[in-house]
Amino acid sequence: MKIGIIGSGVVGQTLGKKLAELGHDVVLGTRDPGKLDEKKNMAGSLREWLAQVKDKARVATFAEAASHGELLVNATHGQVSLAALEMAGAAKAGSKTLIDAANELDFSRGMPPAVLASQERCLAEKIQAAFPNLKVVKTLNTIAATVMVDPKALQGGDHTLFMAGDDQAAKAQVAGLLKAFGWTDILDLGNIAQARGMEMYLALWVRLYGSLQNGFINVKVVR
Amino acid sequence: MKIGIIGSGVVGQTLGKKLAELGHDVVLGTRDPGKLDEKKNMAGSLREWLAQVKDKARVATFAEAASHGELLVNATHGQVSLAALEMAGAAKAGSKTLIDAANELDFSRGMPPAVLASQERCLAEKIQAAFPNLKVVKTLNTIAATVMVDPKALQGGDHTLFMAGDDQAAKAQVAGLLKAFGWTDILDLGNIAQARGMEMYLALWVRLYGSLQNGFINVKVVR
Repeated sequence: MKIGIIGSGVVGQTLGKKLAELGHDVVLGTRDPGKLDEKKNMAGSLREWLAQVKDKARVATFAEAASHGELLVNATHGQVSLAALEMAGAAKAGSKTLIDAANELDFSRGMPPAVLASQERCLAEKIQAAFPNLKVVKTLNTIAATVMVDPKALQGGDHTLFMAGDDQAAKAQVAGLLKAFGWTDILDLGNIAQARGMEMYLALWVRLYGSLQNGFINVKVVR
Repeated sequence: MKIGIIGSGVVGQTLGKKLAELGHDVVLGTRDPGKLDEKKNMAGSLREWLAQVKDKARVATFAEAASHGELLVNATHGQVSLAALEMAGAAKAGSKTLIDAANELDFSRGMPPAVLASQERCLAEKIQAAFPNLKVVKTLNTIAATVMVDPKALQGGDHTLFMAGDDQAAKAQVAGLLKAFGWTDILDLGNIAQARGMEMYLALWVRLYGSLQNGFINVKVVR
């Protein structure tokens, strides 16, 4: 499948590499594709990323990623997601599924970061309202990037991935991708308004991270 | 131990009965102890509750419960907790541990209820600020009442209970009570400011409840 990723940080690089390995045709969208060496993070620079994925994927602008993908991924920081999707021309991208993996976190007040999601503020809902042509599916925002593409990385047993979105076919399409990552317990919470549950949960996740000093964590829903 | 419970709804009745069964000297505080038959909920009326606990516990005013207990429990609805604790004279109750099991939920806009907790609004933190004489320990707010006192009620394996509070000795005291309920995986998230993580998580819990149509749910932290 042709996949366009908006955002080239740790999440974008990690998802992009895994999707390319799975045989998908990936374009990783970044704000300024000329800065392959400057865009460096925990996952490495974009030049290193290109070397890893070899000829299976390429780096381009947000707009090229958005027009390339049959399926899109929002892998930007939540606080700039709307602006990045605007810059990508997402409103003119046609009817496509968009996986929204982002969170609105404010690190300016120290750790743990402030989670800005609330009953009144849901990023996925804002994206769906701003880009009604997209079929937004919120998922993957509740775990660290390495766990997103390798759920077996956690030693402590099976754990749960949540999703929410208005379009059933888009959710089924996304669930197919997630199963290819190794996810077995995927729980559909309902329409896009339910995404606030996954976004507000981050306030617990950042504290689990703080207490356990480890990003290799998730929760299993036990019944 | 002498325990005073502020609030006689499902949570107060369920905790009170279990604590009485464990041999504690329980006073269940209610707004108007004269209305034993009117105060009726899923757990039954207060008169039925008294019949169940026999002479091991009694129903009294908020103020009597607060002065009776060496340890207190806030089992009121979160939106009235501060007023109920004020009515209980909690400011003059001395230095006591208060278990805060409450959530600020707004059911007026339909289901799932709106979770009012946010980065800017944390009930446990507000209670600690309003009653600095109390040692507030947030816990038990992330599960249904029946699960609070019977974690084994979930068939799907072990699951996690969270706590947060400023006072280490108070948290150790509360952990002792929780272990007597059957809890084995109790995770301390830190000081009372971390309680917002547990309160914001409710936004996910109410959606799990909606999706699974079942209150017998919790999460296990998997590492």
